[in-house]
Amino acid sequence: MAPINQLNPSPRVLLGPGPSDVHPRVLNAMATPLLGHLDPQFLEIMNEAQELLRKTFRTANRLTFPVSGTGSAGMETCVVNLIEPGDRMVVCVNGVFGQRMKDVAERAGAVVTPLDKPWGDIFELDELRQVLQKVRPKVLGIVHAETSTGAWQPAEELGKLCHEFDTLLLLDTVTSLGGVPVEVDGWGIDAVYSGTQKCLSCPPGLAPVSFSTRAVEAMNRRKSRVQSWYLDMTLVQRYWGEERFYHHTAPISMIYALREALRLVHEEGLEARWARHLRNHKALKAGLAALGIQYAAREGHQLPTLNAVLIPEKADDLATRKQLLSEFGIEIGGGLGDFKGKAWRVGLMGYSSRANNVLLFLAALEQSLATQGVPFSRGAGVSAAGQSYR
Amino acid sequence: MAPINQLNPSPRVLLGPGPSDVHPRVLNAMATPLLGHLDPQFLEIMNEAQELLRKTFRTANRLTFPVSGTGSAGMETCVVNLIEPGDRMVVCVNGVFGQRMKDVAERAGAVVTPLDKPWGDIFELDELRQVLQKVRPKVLGIVHAETSTGAWQPAEELGKLCHEFDTLLLLDTVTSLGGVPVEVDGWGIDAVYSGTQKCLSCPPGLAPVSFSTRAVEAMNRRKSRVQSWYLDMTLVQRYWGEERFYHHTAPISMIYALREALRLVHEEGLEARWARHLRNHKALKAGLAALGIQYAAREGHQLPTLNAVLIPEKADDLATRKQLLSEFGIEIGGGLGDFKGKAWRVGLMGYSSRANNVLLFLAALEQSLATQGVPFSRGAGVSAAGQSYR
Repeated sequence: MAPINQLNPSPRVLLGPGPSDVHPRVLNAMATPLLGHLDPQFLEIMNEAQELLRKTFRTANRLTFPVSGTGSAGMETCVVNLIEPGDRMVVCVNGVFGQRMKDVAERAGAVVTPLDKPWGDIFELDELRQVLQKVRPKVLGIVHAETSTGAWQPAEELGKLCHEFDTLLLLDTVTSLGGVPVEVDGWGIDAVYSGTQKCLSCPPGLAPVSFSTRAVEAMNRRKSRVQSWYLDMTLVQRYWGEERFYHHTAPISMIYALREALRLVHEEGLEARWARHLRNHKALKAGLAALGIQYAAREGHQLPTLNAVLIPEKADDLATRKQLLSEFGIEIGGGLGDFKGKAWRVGLMGYSSRANNVLLFLAALEQSLATQGVPFSRGAGVSAAGQSYR
Repeated sequence: MAPINQLNPSPRVLLGPGPSDVHPRVLNAMATPLLGHLDPQFLEIMNEAQELLRKTFRTANRLTFPVSGTGSAGMETCVVNLIEPGDRMVVCVNGVFGQRMKDVAERAGAVVTPLDKPWGDIFELDELRQVLQKVRPKVLGIVHAETSTGAWQPAEELGKLCHEFDTLLLLDTVTSLGGVPVEVDGWGIDAVYSGTQKCLSCPPGLAPVSFSTRAVEAMNRRKSRVQSWYLDMTLVQRYWGEERFYHHTAPISMIYALREALRLVHEEGLEARWARHLRNHKALKAGLAALGIQYAAREGHQLPTLNAVLIPEKADDLATRKQLLSEFGIEIGGGLGDFKGKAWRVGLMGYSSRANNVLLFLAALEQSLATQGVPFSRGAGVSAAGQSYR
């Protein structure tokens, strides 16, 4: 075995689908010596993290806290707590994360009706109304920001629609929370999960979740135990609630980090943060357009946080990504599933969403495309992005 | 809402049931800027973490890696991957974590036969043989180091015994790995999980697990899907194995930290580390005996890593723990379950297992007992511990 030396990763500019770059203040918080998970000072830190999370989700939901796992654990938490074997659930599938939710729901014993759309597309209210009318499901699951396609699902009216049919709305906000508007109370969302490593720019490892009163009531009416002990809200909420009853040891350092990341979010202000994400996205899009590069998601529904673009015909997917990483330290993501080999995913999330990164990425991409003999007008991308900022 | 200020926790000496104090090098690793979870450099770091984990578990098992959750997620991972609905499982219950395993197994659909013993006691080979003979279970689950009672279960012969009955051995090493001998291959353990925040002195958030070839074959023979998508080994191992297929975003900073914590383990050497834990435990025990304080677990089977002791008759449980924390910054644990209000749990784990901490804790405890008018001979504890080190 080769010697395992001191950690010394190369510097990176993280413009993939997550993790995004982490602010130095958050990294410092991670290095803070630990308190015990039942220390009164730590309990206060938990309260603060919850308060900041509620403010981020725009909700008064009592049951709002970070699950001790990554975003997918948040998805599983929502599903297994809302679903009992035999419950009907409609899952909207237009990318990898809709597919994943369908899989998770089936494993929880749900009778799943998938609603399929082409990748990159979004769901219209009318189609959703039709399926709700027909299926009358307990839960409708839908992805707000599809990380695999960059599609931005309108979600403002979904809660109202679901509640007409006595259906609970479950929304995936992994790649939207902190980057574009998410209004849990305003939009009538009953269960929501996110990840820390996207627009909140905290390391991966926690999954913020929130449940409405309606969702909590549904959980209280369960006849069977939640299949997962680790993710069982009836137990976990006794630790995150006033009782402070030991369930599992909280990931203390990660909660330090999340609290600091959320402090940064609210120092900037949510509206200012959303505007920043939009501004940098527009500049990137202008730059890419000038290079002849098109977006994969439907026009008018493209996420500012995750820019999925079609790989130019003469460009080599892997070679381009390798060159960006090795020569410039820039990470972007490849395509997943239907988009494998066809799309690049350029994240502009949280601390990574900066003008410097947009200009640097476009300059580096031009360099790489030139190496490969892909035709484009030299300097056009950087110039168009620069103009967009003016 | 009160302003949420910069993180500034009071200094602590963590002598509870976990987390233990984290070495400064591990805290520094946590603050290292992130690589992407599919970055070639990060994949190499994962390989190194796995190699170090195998060395720590003393195993050649290919399927050895940290689950993206805390110790209890490790327990659930082992159970849900080995068990299919209707499978028979024997769970040994002599404390909170045996109880928990029974609960987790039932939720996974196992037909559980619990084997109960009084808290603080351990299981004899003969009793285990009897139940295996009678039940012929697919899995026997047992806790090596019962964190709630401080009981140290002999485990050397368990694998051989289980395999006589074609039973898989599942061992909980949350409070033993890195503190007392754990020999996964030598003892024939088929599935094992641990936590990072105990004797490995890494922050909580990961659960190292390892599966034998026999366990992997059992998983491959499954007829049903694993009920948890997040913890499904058939999926997770495609990311941790050579394929590097995306499953969920790895908790990058936690893996940095674990790698550094394991580097420290092997710089010290496992045998030296076990000896250190034993030495400090003996000094603590001598000191407590001089104060008239008895251990809760059966004599001869008391963990060096977790010292569960009976609270002296005239001492106030909560008042003592509060005074230790507020005056001296020392955290110790209260009792759980049957031991609530009856026992204190003093952890000497990983970086916390140091002579300084033993002497400081005894001195502070004497101070607190004196305040409360509990009778003991002043200075006797510190003096006896000091002599034990000579």
